[in-house]
Order: sequence, then C-alpha cells, then structure tokens
Amino acid sequence: MSMPTDDVLARLAQVIEQRKHAEPDKSYVAKLFSKGLDAILKKVGEEATETVMAAKDGEPHKVVYEVADLWFHSLLVLSHFGLQPSDVLAELARREGLSGLEEKAQRSAPATGQGGSANA
Amino acid sequence: MSMPTDDVLARLAQVIEQRKHAEPDKSYVAKLFSKGLDAILKKVGEEATETVMAAKDGEPHKVVYEVADLWFHSLLVLSHFGLQPSDVLAELARREGLSGLEEKAQRSAPATGQGGSANA
Amino acid sequence: MSMPTDDVLARLAQVIEQRKHAEPDKSYVAKLFSKGLDAILKKVGEEATETVMAAKDGEPHKVVYEVADLWFHSLLVLSHFGLQPSDVLAELARREGLSGLEEKAQRSAPATGQGGSANA
Amino acid sequence: MSMPTDDVLARLAQVIEQRKHAEPDKSYVAKLFSKGLDAILKKVGEEATETVMAAKDGEPHKVVYEVADLWFHSLLVLSHFGLQPSDVLAELARREGLSGLEEKAQRSAPATGQGGSANA
Repeated sequence: MSMPTDDVLARLAQVIEQRKHAEPDKSYVAKLFSKGLDAILKKVGEEATETVMAAKDGEPHKVVYEVADLWFHSLLVLSHFGLQPSDVLAELARREGLSGLEEKAQRSAPATGQGGSANA
Repeated sequence: MSMPTDDVLARLAQVIEQRKHAEPDKSYVAKLFSKGLDAILKKVGEEATETVMAAKDGEPHKVVYEVADLWFHSLLVLSHFGLQPSDVLAELARREGLSGLEEKAQRSAPATGQGGSANA
Repeated sequence: MSMPTDDVLARLAQVIEQRKHAEPDKSYVAKLFSKGLDAILKKVGEEATETVMAAKDGEPHKVVYEVADLWFHSLLVLSHFGLQPSDVLAELARREGLSGLEEKAQRSAPATGQGGSANA
Repeated sequence: MSMPTDDVLARLAQVIEQRKHAEPDKSYVAKLFSKGLDAILKKVGEEATETVMAAKDGEPHKVVYEVADLWFHSLLVLSHFGLQPSDVLAELARREGLSGLEEKAQRSAPATGQGGSANA
C-alpha cells in the first residue's frame, strides 16, 4: 500500500473534531457525542466484545474490521477528554523499551506514579 | 513533543514479533502468547473495562494509560493473526471520507460484504 | 414484597422458551434469537459495560436495573445451549462451601478438571 | 439434583456478607473487597468476556462455569451497594409480564423514569 498510513490516527482525530459539532442526524460522530460519554463508552465495551468474537471466529478480515471499530471509538473517548492519539502513542513509545514484565512491575511500584517514570 | 510518534504502532508491532518467541518468564508478551489466544482476548475485555472506568473517573491521564493498554493488547490480537497495525489503519482510512451514518448504512447493506466496498 | 422471588429465574427461563418462537417483531427475545448467538453475546458484553458504568455512577437503582439486564441476557445464552438457570445455581451451590481462594486454587490445579472436584 | 437451588442466590449473598470482613489472605471475597469497587468491576468485565468466549467455543459446561462466575461477581457489586439478589429478581419479575419490545419502548419513554412504572 503506497498511501502513507502513518498519520491516519491524527487525521481521523481531526475529522472527529469537525464532525462533533455537525447535525446529529447527519453524522454518526455528532450523534454519539449528542448522547454523551456513556453512549461512547458503551460502544467501547461493545466493540471490544465484537473484537473478541471475531477473533474466536478465526476470521482475520473481521478482526481488522472490529479492531478498527474499537480504535475508532477509543478516539471518541480521547476527543471527549481533549486528548490526542499522539498522547496514547507517546505513552506506548515510552513503554517500548521496557519488557512487559518490567513494565508490569513498575506499574505496581508504589512511588513512581501510574506507569512509572521509565525513559526507555 | 519532538519525538516522532507516527510509526509507533509499526515499531511496537516489530517489538511484539521479537518478544513473542522470548522466554515466557522474561517477557510479558511471550508469557501471554504462551497462554494462547483466549488469554490475550481476556485482556482485551479487561482493558476495555478499565478504559470505561478511567473515563467514568474523569481522569485524562488514566484514560491515556488504559487506552494505551487496550491498543497494546489489540496489537497482540493482530499479531496472532499475522496482521499489521497498518491493516487497521488502512481500514480506518478507507472509511475516513465516509460520514459514520453512511458507513453504518453500508455496513448493514446486504450485498457488498462486511464493511462495504467504499473507496472514499 | 410478598411475592416469592425464589423461582423467578426458573419462571423467566420458561417465558424465554415460549417467546423464542414468537414473531421476531412482537418479542424482543424472538428478535434476538432470530439474529443468532453473536447478537445475544454482544448484548452480554454491552450489559456488563452498563453494569460497570452504573456502579461507577454510584446509583443503586441503576445497578439493580443493569444487573437485571445482564442476568436476563445470560439466561438467553443459557437457553441457546439448552441450559437452565438451575445449572448455574447448582454450580454456585457446589462452590458455596469453598472459600474463594481455595476455589481459585482448585481451578488452576492441573488434574481435577475445570472447577475441580469439590464436594462442598 | 434433589438439593433445592431456589434460594442459592440468597444464601450466597449471606456467605458473601460473612466473608467480606474476613482476612483478605484467607478469602477471595475479602481480598476483592479490600481492593475496592474497581477491582470487582474489572472482574465483571472479565467474566463477561469469558462467558462470551465459552459460548463461542460452544462448550455448555464452560458456559455454566463462566455464567456462574459472572453472577457471582454481580453479587459482589450488589453487596457493595447494600443490595440483595432479591432486588434484581424483583426487577426481573416486574418485567416478566412485559414483552421485551414493550419493555424496551417503556425504557426510552421520557416521563416514567428508568424502567417505567410497569406493574405486570
């Protein structure tokens, strides 16, 4: 695929910001935001369940589809809090040099705050 | 933030591939993969629930943290199926020109298959 | 409340059996069953999420309402497999004499099979 | 099974009340309560996911086992709020005479409050 997908999440976040204030009957995003945070969160739970079901079905194209839905609705949650996808990507990058087990250990360490102060 | 986060998901997917075959007691990723798909899916359900709780708590830094966890475990699901983050980003990009309501409508259309044949 | 609630789950299971074969446009139960198991499971994930949100809101009447929804859709899953609420209640009764920690320990014990061979 | 299962939920609720105040290292219930509501809610999300996975596996005995886990952790949520299983059963009984579709309609009606004022 020659299309750069690198900044898809950032562009998608921009589209979401634009649609948030559209007419609820013309935009799915506007409709969900008009219903409030709980409606968005309910969708996160629902899409996580659908991701699990797609994976249990062993159908990769459904997995792609449902993970896309899950990430999309995650972006709506971020948007609700004025957060950007880059905030999540930075958090993931911060952890990247860590083995998961080290990271888990740090997470439960008392003094360093949530997620620790890893600089990997 | 000057660090480019653009390809964090791609780099993270590479790290996951490397860790998959590590010793389960040295890597969280290897440990989860050694337990099998259900263990990974259980984490997806768990992290979705934690994302919902963080959002209900109204604490943005916890939202970032839990969405990072949710996306990370989504990457493990993708990896299990030999999929890449770019597959999900391409699916999201494909939908991007669509309003969500159009997209929802297409999704339930009978003939075009899951997700329709949109080329927006 | 003077009405005996003891056999509510059993009576509800009977009502579900009757409604399963009703016209899908006249019964919520028939409609869900006509859509298949995935539609029912999606509701289980959704109602669990709503239970979590109601609890985070700290509103007992919403908790009652959402747990009722969660249990109701659990009954639909049981019905799909030809199971009765009494099967679940018997499993719970079987565990009842066990401390949860013992029960957890038995669950992960290698030889006794899922749920162990407790005779409590 | 000759053992009456009718009041299993009520008896289980009593056991939970007793165990709540036990030593956290001797009782799974006490341990979860000592961690707080979020730990219990996380388990609700987790057990709902496991119920979905058991159903997708098409294994009735696993479905029974996971629904039991889901109901058990629901009881812990109820207990946190000083609620009884009979509160949920009464809510379910209240709805019992309603078709699900009528009930859904009432639920979204503006004036009657959550769940409506049905006396069926």
